[in-house]
Amino acid sequence: MKEDKRANLTTESDELSKKALKKQQREAEKAAKKAERKAQIQAQQDAVQEEDISVGKYGEIGLIQSKEKHTERKFTDVKNLNPNLENQTIWLRGRLHTSRAKGKQCFIVLRQQSYTIQGLVAVNEKVSKQMIKFISNITKESIVDVEAVVKCVPSKIESCTQKDVEVHIEKVFVISVAKPQLPLQIEDASRPVGETDDNALNIKVNQDTRLDNRVLDLRTPANQAIYRIEAGVCKLFRDILTSKGFVEIHTPKIISAASEGGANVFTVSYFKGNAYLAQSPQLYKQMAIAADFDKVFTTGAVFRAEDSNTHRHLTEFVGLDLEMAFKYHYHEVVDTIGQLFVEMFKGLRDNYAAEIEAVRQQYNVEPFKFLDPPLKLEFKDAIELLSEAGVTLGEEDDLSTPDEKLLGKLVKAKYDTDFYILDNYPLAVRPFYTMPDPNNPKASNSYDMFMRGEEIMSGAQRIHDPELLTERAKHHEIDIEKIRSYIDAFKYGCPPHAGGGIGLERVVMLYLGLDNIRKVSMFPRDPKRITP
Amino acid sequence: MKEDKRANLTTESDELSKKALKKQQREAEKAAKKAERKAQIQAQQDAVQEEDISVGKYGEIGLIQSKEKHTERKFTDVKNLNPNLENQTIWLRGRLHTSRAKGKQCFIVLRQQSYTIQGLVAVNEKVSKQMIKFISNITKESIVDVEAVVKCVPSKIESCTQKDVEVHIEKVFVISVAKPQLPLQIEDASRPVGETDDNALNIKVNQDTRLDNRVLDLRTPANQAIYRIEAGVCKLFRDILTSKGFVEIHTPKIISAASEGGANVFTVSYFKGNAYLAQSPQLYKQMAIAADFDKVFTTGAVFRAEDSNTHRHLTEFVGLDLEMAFKYHYHEVVDTIGQLFVEMFKGLRDNYAAEIEAVRQQYNVEPFKFLDPPLKLEFKDAIELLSEAGVTLGEEDDLSTPDEKLLGKLVKAKYDTDFYILDNYPLAVRPFYTMPDPNNPKASNSYDMFMRGEEIMSGAQRIHDPELLTERAKHHEIDIEKIRSYIDAFKYGCPPHAGGGIGLERVVMLYLGLDNIRKVSMFPRDPKRITP
Repeated sequence: MKEDKRANLTTESDELSKKALKKQQREAEKAAKKAERKAQIQAQQDAVQEEDISVGKYGEIGLIQSKEKHTERKFTDVKNLNPNLENQTIWLRGRLHTSRAKGKQCFIVLRQQSYTIQGLVAVNEKVSKQMIKFISNITKESIVDVEAVVKCVPSKIESCTQKDVEVHIEKVFVISVAKPQLPLQIEDASRPVGETDDNALNIKVNQDTRLDNRVLDLRTPANQAIYRIEAGVCKLFRDILTSKGFVEIHTPKIISAASEGGANVFTVSYFKGNAYLAQSPQLYKQMAIAADFDKVFTTGAVFRAEDSNTHRHLTEFVGLDLEMAFKYHYHEVVDTIGQLFVEMFKGLRDNYAAEIEAVRQQYNVEPFKFLDPPLKLEFKDAIELLSEAGVTLGEEDDLSTPDEKLLGKLVKAKYDTDFYILDNYPLAVRPFYTMPDPNNPKASNSYDMFMRGEEIMSGAQRIHDPELLTERAKHHEIDIEKIRSYIDAFKYGCPPHAGGGIGLERVVMLYLGLDNIRKVSMFPRDPKRITP
Repeated sequence: MKEDKRANLTTESDELSKKALKKQQREAEKAAKKAERKAQIQAQQDAVQEEDISVGKYGEIGLIQSKEKHTERKFTDVKNLNPNLENQTIWLRGRLHTSRAKGKQCFIVLRQQSYTIQGLVAVNEKVSKQMIKFISNITKESIVDVEAVVKCVPSKIESCTQKDVEVHIEKVFVISVAKPQLPLQIEDASRPVGETDDNALNIKVNQDTRLDNRVLDLRTPANQAIYRIEAGVCKLFRDILTSKGFVEIHTPKIISAASEGGANVFTVSYFKGNAYLAQSPQLYKQMAIAADFDKVFTTGAVFRAEDSNTHRHLTEFVGLDLEMAFKYHYHEVVDTIGQLFVEMFKGLRDNYAAEIEAVRQQYNVEPFKFLDPPLKLEFKDAIELLSEAGVTLGEEDDLSTPDEKLLGKLVKAKYDTDFYILDNYPLAVRPFYTMPDPNNPKASNSYDMFMRGEEIMSGAQRIHDPELLTERAKHHEIDIEKIRSYIDAFKYGCPPHAGGGIGLERVVMLYLGLDNIRKVSMFPRDPKRITP
């Protein structure tokens, strides 16, 4: 049977101030409670009037406190419901996504993560009116256990992911009740960008409302997909590097001295003194190289006390960092990292197609394009491309964010790739530990990598000689005593090495073509937000 | 040829104070520099006196700044050197582990991570006396590139990992020079516990000296193995859970309120306000469950501002955390975690045998024993076992650390396992969010897991009902307003769930039977140490 779309009567709106919204919620809750009490009394009266033939087949089962095991109930996942199961009796646990009573029957949609199935219950010799009433009163987002029979449908159910079958419900037990008034509606939070709802109220859920109610917001199909893709990026990063002989290490987040001069570092009270939160695991990765681990990676939190309120800055993010000893030329490392990205993009394309499609359903963006092997440009080529487009840069200038964006477009137009490597940056714009280019005193053995015109990783050959490192630090007017332990790490023999740090959230955001890093950080931290 | 053990003449000793040691080092460095200058002058004089037939075959090549690529040099790993390569000319890059000149020849041992090979160079028609002299003067731990011919040896070389072959050196270039005076000797740091050195000086390197010079200390075979095993535990944890349908998530370390009452929490200056470092990712794992992710795990730094200076406490460690929705009974989760451990132990045993053996070479402990399926005891069984051994505990008492140790021994004696699960702890000794046992008002649906008698994970069914959670928080005299967002996470429907947190370093320490958690944390943090 085909299900009509239910009228959307939510009162939620971004135009309302939070206070007004809260007041409205309180009133609605009161009204709902009143209605509930009334319904209960009515139900009791009904029960007196008419015997309930469905007793024991529905109800609230109370808090699951691990008293029973119910091992006889065989649960099926919604995503596995298909015509092969026709006429089988199954158990399902899911959320009540929507419900609509219509005379003597009730349609519901059950949701399990991103998957939905239509359920039908109608008054008959086994199903009482009271049971229909109970089901139609279950609040949206409540979790229910359902025993039902799988049935094929004559025409596809377009509003559900399982289009060829529905379930005819025989038992319904409420496992966990949702409050009647939700601060946001899953339908609103899931609505494709640019699409209006059926009532043309044009309800959007803004970013702060989403983040304030993250537990609800994360239930949308796009969010279910985004965080599985993010997990996929981490898995691919680790698996690919492990297969190349890298060893995972863990580096401390609490450090005794601000690693790069002291700006943008969070201070921690550490017993009777102070400590700092690491802005990068770089020193520790380099120490692991000096300690013969040869190739290492680490994934974990990195912290930036930067008061940047942009679409791409977080104060805490996940760093995917690697460092690698090489024989004679840092391009051995650049090529390894470039190949890592190509393999990651292939892995996402091949193993996460359904998730990528789910994100595209809501945020319609161009698929990500890449070349194999990846495109590698020199900084001077970038200057030239920009110059041809009318933007003039000196050979020792860094690229601004708009320059990078423009460059991304020029590269895409010329090479048809959303990923590329920019090598051989000016020495003047890189940190003191960057190895100078032996062939050009103004250049350095350093590189950034870009996705859709935004930087997602920065790296370099590091200076592994304590004398040159000291000299370069002095040139940058850094207090040598403060970085003594860094310099000392190279006193007992260290192979030449290079590496880099990748921002996980930026990779996910730009791979999917999303416009805000808060969409890809489950619980984002920025200068104005440290909750929930 | 067989290599004698070189006399160990290090001046390093734990009995010396640090200051004295530093002074001594400075003097030794001065003396070494003087000697070096003298040697250089002598070498120049020698060069005048005698033409050097080996010119261009040895020397310091200067800083590798990525000028050349030397793609013609085919490098071989030391671990792959075997009789099949006899008479082949190869390149090796490794550290000069030891060297010993003896008349017209010089023996060296080259080390690459945990692998060592003997090298020989003797004066002949291609090798000059000057070259021998140069090689014998290379400081220990310097990194060298060597071109050499692989040769089989008539009797095994017991002092190297590659026992059946040696290399006859034709070229030697120093890639990175180590300072002549090392703060600790790799031989001393590698010496098996209880074994004296050849000179019976009984030199041990104490823990602080090791940690202060971690870049050297980490080069020992045991340390090379320990951190590969640690990487293995993480990989197994993630791979096993991913195969069971868990999704990796990332949880913030910076939080707005102290999650468990405020004790033992580090404070962070956050722009104009304060924030805290998360003691556990628990709230966020639970929010992911309430947000339909069903089964989640996360690995990352957790922080405890506890002034505990013990063998098993760190202020920052790596948490392996998981959380899982279940249908009706939290034992679904306990069994999943128990099976996870069994699979991890099997994975370590099967895939990391060489590394485990390398650790046993230095720290000789009993191999780790486990049962499949794992042993699960109830708390009351533990009370009984302890009582039989003469230790009486009330039914609402927690186990002290000595109780746990004793219990570990009793369990080992009775069941022959180093791993077991202790289920159904008293409610009184568990946090407020622990689900009470429906069958026993004094018990709770909570569990700890133990390795060699020490707790390595703690977990429970969590209360997923906002009303009961509020009631239990009040019972624990917790300010409800401070945990409002935690309670609110369960207002919109949440499945029953349970989980736990595992301390990575404890698992590695106890699996290997080591006596100090600082041996398994690459850069440990405790109340007295935040460097390097």
